[in-house]
Amino acid sequence: MSNPAASTHERILQQGLALMSQAGGAGVTRGVPADQVGMSKSGRFAHFRSKEDVQIGLLQHMAQVATAQVVRPAMRADEGLPRLQALVQNRFGWAQRAGLPGGCPVAAGLFEFDDTEGAVRNEILAMERQWRGLLKQPVRQASDWGHLRPDLDGKQFVWELCGFHLIHHVAPRFLRTADADRRASTTFQVLLDRARPPPGRRKVTKGVK
Amino acid sequence: MSNPAASTHERILQQGLALMSQAGGAGVTRGVPADQVGMSKSGRFAHFRSKEDVQIGLLQHMAQVATAQVVRPAMRADEGLPRLQALVQNRFGWAQRAGLPGGCPVAAGLFEFDDTEGAVRNEILAMERQWRGLLKQPVRQASDWGHLRPDLDGKQFVWELCGFHLIHHVAPRFLRTADADRRASTTFQVLLDRARPPPGRRKVTKGVK
Repeated sequence: MSNPAASTHERILQQGLALMSQAGGAGVTRGVPADQVGMSKSGRFAHFRSKEDVQIGLLQHMAQVATAQVVRPAMRADEGLPRLQALVQNRFGWAQRAGLPGGCPVAAGLFEFDDTEGAVRNEILAMERQWRGLLKQPVRQASDWGHLRPDLDGKQFVWELCGFHLIHHVAPRFLRTADADRRASTTFQVLLDRARPPPGRRKVTKGVK
Repeated sequence: MSNPAASTHERILQQGLALMSQAGGAGVTRGVPADQVGMSKSGRFAHFRSKEDVQIGLLQHMAQVATAQVVRPAMRADEGLPRLQALVQNRFGWAQRAGLPGGCPVAAGLFEFDDTEGAVRNEILAMERQWRGLLKQPVRQASDWGHLRPDLDGKQFVWELCGFHLIHHVAPRFLRTADADRRASTTFQVLLDRARPPPGRRKVTKGVK
């Protein structure tokens, strides 16, 4: 049986998150009437005591949505390279698929909150670190198991991957170019090809060839 | 002989730009007292009729600074690969060297103004396109002259390069990691190595080997 209160709560969070995706963390609580995100009128958000609380509440909701859209489906893939591929592919364009018209709020937050201190910045930093940790694990496994080179610099690999996520965020949205998905996919394939062991030295001990 | 009026004007623009670099385009005209950027009190900026005018004025000042810091020195390098290398190396960290503590305002603007329309967005878009055009030219030359592969996809090359610029912007500032310059340099070298013709097929017709 559906729960009307829960679905109203969910709808309000989703609207707030869509707004944050477009207007940024500051925009969602400033310039935008607070009741648009259901705060002043609904009372449901009485536990949000400050603007920072609203921003963090929406980011935490985002984490749940991203877990459902990106992480959980990838965890069904085999460990190592298949899981890495699933995480990366699920991440490209995830925000649009989740109904966030302004793209990933964390990606934008890396630029909005870089010259500030405080709880919102800390929340975004924790989320970004968590994401990088999620990527590093299958990279390391893929390297240990021979899908990728044993001497691969995993941190560098993830660093480059995060650069591609940022330019993929910008390309369709700011530059309004139509080829972002294709370019991102090419980029990831090239990054993977570079990271593979030379053909004669492949020794796959687990997972895919 | 120095011109006191010109140096005051320059100082005010530089302060405004440093503020924009930290607080973003919106932050520089909202939340931040206008007289901090010398607008309301000085009268020198009487020609700035609107917030958008202020933002665009500061961006145009930024273009001058970036031309002096990044582009003009690179134009002294030989055409083709040396010029490409000079442009990219000069770009990494240019904003800090120019006294902009919040990093490149255009890089941040790609995220701040992606869901808006208007003159500020158009200005940033023109600046970003100009930068990409500046990169494409030596990439094409390097490809024609045999420094890089003749079949190199120049657009893809520049696309990846712009991704690395974005993550290099984020790394020391949001993530506060100390290895951004080293990682960016590694990334650029790897990108170049991938783009070079196979050793047996190099046919350099102009410029460096």
